[in-house]
Amino acid sequence: MSEHALDKKTYKQRSEELKEALLDAQFELQNQRGGPVLILISGNDFAGKAELIYTFYGWLDTRRLNTRAFNLPEGIEKRMPRLWRYWRTLPPAGELGFYLGSWYHQPLMRFSRGQMSEARFVAAMEEIVRFETLLSREGVSIVKLWLHLTGADASKRPNSETFKQTVAMREWGDFSATDYEQVRDAAQRMEHLTSTDSAPWIHVQSSDANYRDIRVAEIILATLQQRLSADNKDSQAPQSDWPGATRQVLQELDYSASLDKDDYKQQLDVWQARLRELVRHPRFNRHSLLLVFEGSDAAGKGGTIRRITECLDPRHLRVHGTAAPSAEEATQPYLLRFWKRIPAPGNVVIFDRSHYGRVLVERVEGFCPPQRWQQAYQEINDFEQQLQQSGTVVLKFWLAITEDEQLERFKAREKSSVKRYKLTDEDWRNREKWPAYEQAVNDMVAHTNTAHAPWFIISSQDKRHARVESLKIVCEQLEQRLERSKSS
Amino acid sequence: MSEHALDKKTYKQRSEELKEALLDAQFELQNQRGGPVLILISGNDFAGKAELIYTFYGWLDTRRLNTRAFNLPEGIEKRMPRLWRYWRTLPPAGELGFYLGSWYHQPLMRFSRGQMSEARFVAAMEEIVRFETLLSREGVSIVKLWLHLTGADASKRPNSETFKQTVAMREWGDFSATDYEQVRDAAQRMEHLTSTDSAPWIHVQSSDANYRDIRVAEIILATLQQRLSADNKDSQAPQSDWPGATRQVLQELDYSASLDKDDYKQQLDVWQARLRELVRHPRFNRHSLLLVFEGSDAAGKGGTIRRITECLDPRHLRVHGTAAPSAEEATQPYLLRFWKRIPAPGNVVIFDRSHYGRVLVERVEGFCPPQRWQQAYQEINDFEQQLQQSGTVVLKFWLAITEDEQLERFKAREKSSVKRYKLTDEDWRNREKWPAYEQAVNDMVAHTNTAHAPWFIISSQDKRHARVESLKIVCEQLEQRLERSKSS
Repeated sequence: MSEHALDKKTYKQRSEELKEALLDAQFELQNQRGGPVLILISGNDFAGKAELIYTFYGWLDTRRLNTRAFNLPEGIEKRMPRLWRYWRTLPPAGELGFYLGSWYHQPLMRFSRGQMSEARFVAAMEEIVRFETLLSREGVSIVKLWLHLTGADASKRPNSETFKQTVAMREWGDFSATDYEQVRDAAQRMEHLTSTDSAPWIHVQSSDANYRDIRVAEIILATLQQRLSADNKDSQAPQSDWPGATRQVLQELDYSASLDKDDYKQQLDVWQARLRELVRHPRFNRHSLLLVFEGSDAAGKGGTIRRITECLDPRHLRVHGTAAPSAEEATQPYLLRFWKRIPAPGNVVIFDRSHYGRVLVERVEGFCPPQRWQQAYQEINDFEQQLQQSGTVVLKFWLAITEDEQLERFKAREKSSVKRYKLTDEDWRNREKWPAYEQAVNDMVAHTNTAHAPWFIISSQDKRHARVESLKIVCEQLEQRLERSKSS
Repeated sequence: MSEHALDKKTYKQRSEELKEALLDAQFELQNQRGGPVLILISGNDFAGKAELIYTFYGWLDTRRLNTRAFNLPEGIEKRMPRLWRYWRTLPPAGELGFYLGSWYHQPLMRFSRGQMSEARFVAAMEEIVRFETLLSREGVSIVKLWLHLTGADASKRPNSETFKQTVAMREWGDFSATDYEQVRDAAQRMEHLTSTDSAPWIHVQSSDANYRDIRVAEIILATLQQRLSADNKDSQAPQSDWPGATRQVLQELDYSASLDKDDYKQQLDVWQARLRELVRHPRFNRHSLLLVFEGSDAAGKGGTIRRITECLDPRHLRVHGTAAPSAEEATQPYLLRFWKRIPAPGNVVIFDRSHYGRVLVERVEGFCPPQRWQQAYQEINDFEQQLQQSGTVVLKFWLAITEDEQLERFKAREKSSVKRYKLTDEDWRNREKWPAYEQAVNDMVAHTNTAHAPWFIISSQDKRHARVESLKIVCEQLEQRLERSKSS
């Protein structure tokens, strides 16, 4: 018996101990509604990836356990951002999720077969690292296992007894034995690029099934216990210094622009007709449109959005208002809600308030620790870049009014029967934090005004101006994008 | 101007009034988190179905509004129960949902074109009535509009000005003018079969667009207001007499069956091997398997389920534990959670506790009004019948133990480190309600033991017996079904 093997008696005793401890930890995880634990199973052919999962289905509480297996992208998945299908199927809080064919599988397979360039492979790995980092910051634990066979074991079939146990389940999208060396090299490259502090790759010697199962159980148990003790502590890092943006986009804005009624009517007609044409353009079916509307209370977001929705087919349109997260949403990564709402090809989605809540209301009201909103800028940029790369046109609007103008509008709302429901006590309280919100907006624009998802700061002091200006920008930007995609 | 037309001035004044009232009502609906309001738009070609929806996108709060348009079933939809795609896309509480091409569209089109027999059409309409009745009992309002053109208007194209407004949106999957008479006859048949008290068809004369929009606004407003006033009242009907089942399945059960260890091991091997084979059978890909496990606390559901999952591929398996509904789920129709979890073709889903909660724990604990759990038997039968018709094998198990046996097991659990987490104060409290649960089980079996989804009452006094017996039944039933589908 080698050091990587276990005799039957030791296995039995150890597995009983581990099973008990794992059930306890799993129960605690569920009780605390802690972020899910993802267990990625990769490794050599015939190292027993499927067999291993069977073992844990025997040991753990299967009601809080599930296995996700991804093959090559199909149908709509091909036209959405690469990570979309993983986002939308993330396990809920308190659960364990086994992954066969995780987000590593496809790039690893393609790179090892020479179907993907080195540069693209590196980019894909970097995208994955940012994804995993985000998940880990949001309380999701990730265990990445590489089931390893050494030397002679590596290319041979398993003995028939082991094989029988897994006969109901074919190994997952695997490589032929002749691929072995290429896969090994690609896997080493992958490991080098994606072993991070929060989610390192762990090798598990798998020639002996008993040793393998016990070792993996120990790793999962350690992860669960570490997580549970961390959840009990206040692990928040102290607030770092935050320099703040130097450019004061809101203060620099010209608030004088306005349109008289006749000009407004005429221009509105022109741009609405243009937008109707653009979304009916055949090439728009290869794209989609995500419009983000943010702005102070009473800045006129609703009216502006309505002038846009009037031109759109309700069947291919969704307007999402963003409220405070529900109890369930609060246990999930912040961006998940928004990933679930991204537009499919040919569709338009409008966010009336958006994922920027994290760096606006959550920052100003202290709902989110400073470290997390500071990290959120990059996370948001990543999100929008992935959208842009898969064909979505992402445009972001800040509708700006002055503090005095807001006061006038609040007073008018109190008197209006149609609009009084829009005014709450909280709106009045928010006014006291005007300077803090102003700083948050300036910082937001400084950090997230990107070429792939630009911000447009629009004076809404005159609503007619804001409506026409927004429509015009949507048309111009969409037209440019459709024009560019002609040649591609 | 006819009685079904409005001049511009009247339209303007009336639409302002209605818009204000609708916004108010919509806001209230959202505040009360009341069940959604579904507005089904059907009717003659060119009666302005799309145009009408545009109008309401201008009048209502679009963040709580959405439009669903269904074409012919595609992909997986073809292999799931007909109503599945409508269940899974039901609007959340507090929202308004417009439907183009609702559940009526496909049967109406097929019947009017002679592609569907009279008998099948009637069956489809009856299925729809039961679906709508259930929704209405669960707090969902349904408005069914038939936009109507008379005589000469009925087959002619709209005037160009009206048409321009809807140019961005093609009319939905409609009929050519030559179909007109067949469609009219089929529609009359449909109306006759599906106009119920809770969801009647309402005709709206639509030759004049202004008249049409105002009329529909009035109908929607009336529905909203009626709903809101009903939500404020306690509209619960008094408890009707409930006879209770005469057959006492639990009391009649033979609790003496048992298996010694050797027999158990041998039989377990036999049936597990058989089940592995059956789910790998090519014909199983046309079917799926839903196993429902219910039973007293400590009856051994978990261990029995585990002996089954050991034979199944985790990638095509989900075990769902059923807990009390979350805050969000509590605002939705009870069966929605379970509709969302039904197995896709080739998959196995196991409910560890299930949709029978309504007639068990919810009944006994008084979480559900008597009227609703009494109606639930039929609703559950409908649900399971639809599953069966689309190829799912539905098998339901009650694992039965005696009151004394439960006491022994509870005591043992208190001492066991692995199982103590399974025992809660509530479990002890539930014991006091043993006779009430017993009655509930007897009633449940009496009302829901159907040919398409049978109950199996199994003594779990001896766990080994229960495990082997359940496995054996799963194998035998599945085999029969696969055998029968050979010829079809």
